[in-house]
Amino acid sequence: MSTKMCGQETRVIPRLLQMRFHWLKSEKEAMRLEQAGITRSVLDAAIAAFTLEIIAKHGEPAARLCNKDPLTIKMGTYVIDLFPNAKFIFMVRDGRATAHSIISRKVTITGFDLTSYRQCLKKWNSAVEAMNNQCRELGPNKCLRVPYEQLVLHPREWMEKVLQFLDIPWNDSVLHHEDFINNGIELSKVERSSDQVIKPVNLEALTKWVDHIPEEVVRDMADIAPMLSVLGYDPYANPPNYGKPDEKVAEKTKEIQENKVVWDKKVKEMFSLGWDGADNGGDTALDKEPSDSPNNTT
Amino acid sequence: MSTKMCGQETRVIPRLLQMRFHWLKSEKEAMRLEQAGITRSVLDAAIAAFTLEIIAKHGEPAARLCNKDPLTIKMGTYVIDLFPNAKFIFMVRDGRATAHSIISRKVTITGFDLTSYRQCLKKWNSAVEAMNNQCRELGPNKCLRVPYEQLVLHPREWMEKVLQFLDIPWNDSVLHHEDFINNGIELSKVERSSDQVIKPVNLEALTKWVDHIPEEVVRDMADIAPMLSVLGYDPYANPPNYGKPDEKVAEKTKEIQENKVVWDKKVKEMFSLGWDGADNGGDTALDKEPSDSPNNTT
Repeated sequence: MSTKMCGQETRVIPRLLQMRFHWLKSEKEAMRLEQAGITRSVLDAAIAAFTLEIIAKHGEPAARLCNKDPLTIKMGTYVIDLFPNAKFIFMVRDGRATAHSIISRKVTITGFDLTSYRQCLKKWNSAVEAMNNQCRELGPNKCLRVPYEQLVLHPREWMEKVLQFLDIPWNDSVLHHEDFINNGIELSKVERSSDQVIKPVNLEALTKWVDHIPEEVVRDMADIAPMLSVLGYDPYANPPNYGKPDEKVAEKTKEIQENKVVWDKKVKEMFSLGWDGADNGGDTALDKEPSDSPNNTT
Repeated sequence: MSTKMCGQETRVIPRLLQMRFHWLKSEKEAMRLEQAGITRSVLDAAIAAFTLEIIAKHGEPAARLCNKDPLTIKMGTYVIDLFPNAKFIFMVRDGRATAHSIISRKVTITGFDLTSYRQCLKKWNSAVEAMNNQCRELGPNKCLRVPYEQLVLHPREWMEKVLQFLDIPWNDSVLHHEDFINNGIELSKVERSSDQVIKPVNLEALTKWVDHIPEEVVRDMADIAPMLSVLGYDPYANPPNYGKPDEKVAEKTKEIQENKVVWDKKVKEMFSLGWDGADNGGDTALDKEPSDSPNNTT
């Protein structure tokens, strides 16, 4: 296999990138580093070396390396300076679904108030705006924007786009990732999206958020999260019409719903170790050092 | 030349080391990283790669590499894990002189209250205690403790010890560093100790602190800074008898004092750029991110 599985979020790569931005943002600190012989090129070489070690060693050896820390795209142009052959896949999702996911799963992210849909949607908006700007600045050869809903509704069409973007020949296995869980794909027991990943692609997650967002937030949606419209999500439709799924996806969804008990059991078994601890109150590690704190660098 | 000049403090190496300690101190975060494939060995490889790039590129290429970030010794045993051939030189100084230097030069260090000798001496005590423990744990083949005062009073004797410890043959040039400033040794215009380094070794700095420490602090000295006694500095003598200088050192000191005007001018010329800015009020960069914050990792 010549392409590396992305693996889990490394968490440490965006933190180091943030640390660098933090250092250079202060003129005084930048001058001190420069005076100390830590020029930008020295610092960049060191950050590249760190990043490469983390990505290369965190999983099996491979000809193509992959990283899925969401925040790295906020420093996209810098990452391309370090790794000129790198490419970004920027996956966007309806911010209302994102906010609902964060709040209902209690995903602690610095700056996100998990008691307020309004505040979470605002935070989502500013994070996604910065990411989207970086993606546009990188240009279509370096950054491919993939709407999550379209990938779910039309997996073949979008995976073809993704593989073409990456110059990887088509391979049918990309359409049934579920067959490779624990057989080439390792899941984190504590990453809170893992329970979703073990199922085949299905429609369950698209509209779960509907009816969970307070009325007055729904009413002000276009103001709270203007990026919804920018990204093509109708802020006044609850839910918007994301489109008609491919037949295979509709079938799989039906199958999952009919076998709900079996799937629930499967999820439970897989996470019997990690989830208890993670859900059981004070998730203080994440409170202090979230893997994906979108507002630290804006 | 086969031995690398240490160069200025890099500032970024201790910060990355601190970040790692911070991550692993939290059981939750350590588990998340482990689950994400960022095992200790992966993280260590990445930190070693970063450190090596910084040290190697921050100055001329050389067979032996050197780093003088004071804080790295607080993580000494870990650094030896990363670089098994590394050695530490742990330079200690009378804490009263250190506190006076920090306060009179307004060196901003996180946790140090520059308005209070008592508080600074307490902070010095806990930092030096931790460093001394690491040095002892590393053992005499890996860590050499050098009392600053003894190096100043007896430079030949102590430089012989240092070079022997490092397996470097004797070379007379180590006794007149002042001839190499800007001729192999580059000084930072903003590192606040630079003004001292351009003079030959002399006795001026040893007892400058006497009569600057408040009476009630002098009275409680043994309680405030018990490490003074541990390191051989009499807490009740102001100043203690550090010993009799070598003849050459006494001569040089006399020469410097007689040519005070010339030396003051030399210092001024050398730092005409950086010092103004650094001394002129709000040193906010250092406030937030000191290069040598001794209490972040205790």
